[in-house]
Amino acid sequence: MKNEDYAVLERRFEEVGRTGYVYALIGWDARVCAPEKASEEQGEMMAGLVRRQHEIMTRDDWGGLFDRLKTADDLDDWQRANVREAEREWIYETALPDDLCARSAVASNRGQAVWAKAKAENDFKAFAPCLKELVAIARETAACLAQKTGAAGYDALLDTFQPGMNVRKLDEMFAELKSFLPDFVENARLRGKRPPEPFEKTYSATEQTAFCERLMQTMGFDFSRGRLDMRDSAFQTSCGRDDMRVVGRLNESDPLRAAAAVMHETGHALYEQGLPREHMFQPVGKPRGMAAHESQSLLMACAVLQNDAFLRWLSGEMTRFYNTDECSFDRLKARLRRVEPSLIRIDADDATYPLHIILRYELEKELIRGGLEVDDLPEAWNVKMREYLGVVPQTDAEGCLQDIHWASGSFGYFPDYTVGAVAAAQFFDAARKAVPDLDGRLGAGDFSALKEWLNKNVHACASKYGFDELIRRATGEDLSVRAFKNALSERYGA
Amino acid sequence: MKNEDYAVLERRFEEVGRTGYVYALIGWDARVCAPEKASEEQGEMMAGLVRRQHEIMTRDDWGGLFDRLKTADDLDDWQRANVREAEREWIYETALPDDLCARSAVASNRGQAVWAKAKAENDFKAFAPCLKELVAIARETAACLAQKTGAAGYDALLDTFQPGMNVRKLDEMFAELKSFLPDFVENARLRGKRPPEPFEKTYSATEQTAFCERLMQTMGFDFSRGRLDMRDSAFQTSCGRDDMRVVGRLNESDPLRAAAAVMHETGHALYEQGLPREHMFQPVGKPRGMAAHESQSLLMACAVLQNDAFLRWLSGEMTRFYNTDECSFDRLKARLRRVEPSLIRIDADDATYPLHIILRYELEKELIRGGLEVDDLPEAWNVKMREYLGVVPQTDAEGCLQDIHWASGSFGYFPDYTVGAVAAAQFFDAARKAVPDLDGRLGAGDFSALKEWLNKNVHACASKYGFDELIRRATGEDLSVRAFKNALSERYGA
Repeated sequence: MKNEDYAVLERRFEEVGRTGYVYALIGWDARVCAPEKASEEQGEMMAGLVRRQHEIMTRDDWGGLFDRLKTADDLDDWQRANVREAEREWIYETALPDDLCARSAVASNRGQAVWAKAKAENDFKAFAPCLKELVAIARETAACLAQKTGAAGYDALLDTFQPGMNVRKLDEMFAELKSFLPDFVENARLRGKRPPEPFEKTYSATEQTAFCERLMQTMGFDFSRGRLDMRDSAFQTSCGRDDMRVVGRLNESDPLRAAAAVMHETGHALYEQGLPREHMFQPVGKPRGMAAHESQSLLMACAVLQNDAFLRWLSGEMTRFYNTDECSFDRLKARLRRVEPSLIRIDADDATYPLHIILRYELEKELIRGGLEVDDLPEAWNVKMREYLGVVPQTDAEGCLQDIHWASGSFGYFPDYTVGAVAAAQFFDAARKAVPDLDGRLGAGDFSALKEWLNKNVHACASKYGFDELIRRATGEDLSVRAFKNALSERYGA
Repeated sequence: MKNEDYAVLERRFEEVGRTGYVYALIGWDARVCAPEKASEEQGEMMAGLVRRQHEIMTRDDWGGLFDRLKTADDLDDWQRANVREAEREWIYETALPDDLCARSAVASNRGQAVWAKAKAENDFKAFAPCLKELVAIARETAACLAQKTGAAGYDALLDTFQPGMNVRKLDEMFAELKSFLPDFVENARLRGKRPPEPFEKTYSATEQTAFCERLMQTMGFDFSRGRLDMRDSAFQTSCGRDDMRVVGRLNESDPLRAAAAVMHETGHALYEQGLPREHMFQPVGKPRGMAAHESQSLLMACAVLQNDAFLRWLSGEMTRFYNTDECSFDRLKARLRRVEPSLIRIDADDATYPLHIILRYELEKELIRGGLEVDDLPEAWNVKMREYLGVVPQTDAEGCLQDIHWASGSFGYFPDYTVGAVAAAQFFDAARKAVPDLDGRLGAGDFSALKEWLNKNVHACASKYGFDELIRRATGEDLSVRAFKNALSERYGA
């Protein structure tokens, strides 16, 4: 006989989950299809769906339900894990007073609008008051969460994006990265060859879309459960249990960048397609946090793309498909294997990228702790840029105004990019050990064994285990920078 | 001071309306974008939204609300009309017991599936049990509606699609059409020239989409509030107050048919874009029924497209855009001006089309009344085909199995196609009288005056008046077949 309380929990999360998929579909439509003037309405629709979810998650009988379920003796492993994750979601959903949620939404909307203008006009002072308010709200949010979750201050914010993440773990990992990356980057840069030859031909939208579709098929993406569109920015979103959508970034003058962006998003999409379908509405059926999600995209866009055998295969495919002489292996490789400290995070190579993240992590941690004031941010930013990357922005637009994250109130997200990159290297390393001749397979355009390994060891686990345990079970080791460091050394021959 | 009850009514319908737009968006996505396996989930999402609307519409305080609002003395004309339309929606939403709604949904889903197979296999007997159940449910539905609305039997079904429509009005209109159409068709057929030359070139999807977009722009469609996609069937749907979407039917071997389908759907879309934005969530802000909606599409796809001056302009545009010699005025005209009795409704020309509708109307009326049994339908169909059109299907697949309407339980919809065609002719006639040199304007690709007339006299009125009054106000006359008959005579020179 099925536990009645558990059935109630499942049904409620089915509604919450389905509402979430509708939300995602509208969000996808807003960015891919909707006409210009539909956005206001779509915002209202999405707000209505969030209210509906909030209604369900704030019913007053949840506490008793969880109390009974936590002592129930007729649940299996997955169900127990689901109760744990469900309670976590409930705590987060109810930790903040309505008034704080409302102020936060307003400050985030306003912040993004003011930021966009301030960035365009390189006017940090215009943005500073918004940022002060956003920091104040983030501090207040952290305090509320801390009360309910026990995680202190900034840790509580980190935990919202990647459950289990905290300052102690990040300080340790980032200290290791900082101990070798600046010198590594400097050496790699000095060894760097001349700038790679640019692509001169035009690679049309139609051709690129067709090529990227083939590439996704090769990677094992199931088009009966998803689709690809090419637009001017890339993202992945899931609009149903059988509906994983990839949006790639069209780049008519650089088919390699376009392919890399699609590989990145397809990594995300394969994770979502590989989640256990029977739990997909339930909290336990979700991906294991943002760092875990980034690990899957970076495994494809970095570990696989930078793999010589695969790149040789890709070069052959691109050469044939586009009927071009601009996609030779040497030429693609020269484009990818280039370390060059630069000002802008999203354009950074894989060796300098973590330094951009560490800088942001250290600054936002202090902003939340109160050790850094908003007015002092530009200078603090520039000091760290010089220290870690040896370059200093001439303008705040290219400095502390470059990212949207803080303007939207997202503090605690940045670190997951680098934790994801570190985890990606460790997963790929483990897969290479587990799968005989993985390089050879990738060199033949055969992703089946890699996908199978990821499906089994990462995707199918969803949120059954914590992030640390997921890594241990999949790779046999605790998360560490070893594989990441080795991969960089191998790649850049240092 | 605003009437408090009225504010409550407005807020509730805003939620119902917005939920309806979300429903429409998912429906659009399901037909235009969604991957194959997403359909089950999307069906669930849509069912959830319908439940949500039903929840709101069945709150138990509506009766008192309407009682107070109907005697309130502080409402303006639009508000009073909105109360009337809102009460109507409430009555229809609550007239059917939950059990009947559930049986109806199941029978409709099953009916469509069984019908598709039966049609493919030309096996009416396989479909007959489903149709019997659907007819029984329709009778039961009509009886429930009759109790609440006072409209008897089949009238109640007609009224759901076109408020105010009834058998008395249809019998009168259709008797007039029947009195001249069969002879008219026979004469026109005999005068008919040889079959028009086929298009031999291929008109690519990309080209057709671009051409149809230009055509829609010419017609006054606002692309900041809508979009066009080309697929294998045509429809129009509105996914928000500023989001009217047209889907055209791609036809690579016939650019004229493709253009005609887009003009048809754009007629619908212009109606929706022309509705008063401030009432768009409210019942009074909706289009004035399905016949009114069809009148707007047919006005474009029939009255305008068949207009010599416009067709000459279109021919020039197509010739230039497609760089082709297959789109001369004479050639396009020869394709459009052809009367030929045929078996299939959706392929019928504008003179024979009403006969297809009258046949269905007479049969479904008797099915609901009990004067015709399902088992006798195929024979009754064929008898009427011979009588009205002089052709008899060799198979039921080409006969009474050809349309999906009955299989989905839609009884009472068919007549609106012809009422719409009749109203379209009358509107166009009135517009031609009101707008100086309308033909000349259309001949120059200038829709602005026609659109302005339609906006003012039809679109902006939404559901403020009943259908009959809308026609009278717009055209100065009661609805009659006069203009329709004149248009046919003018067109086919009889």
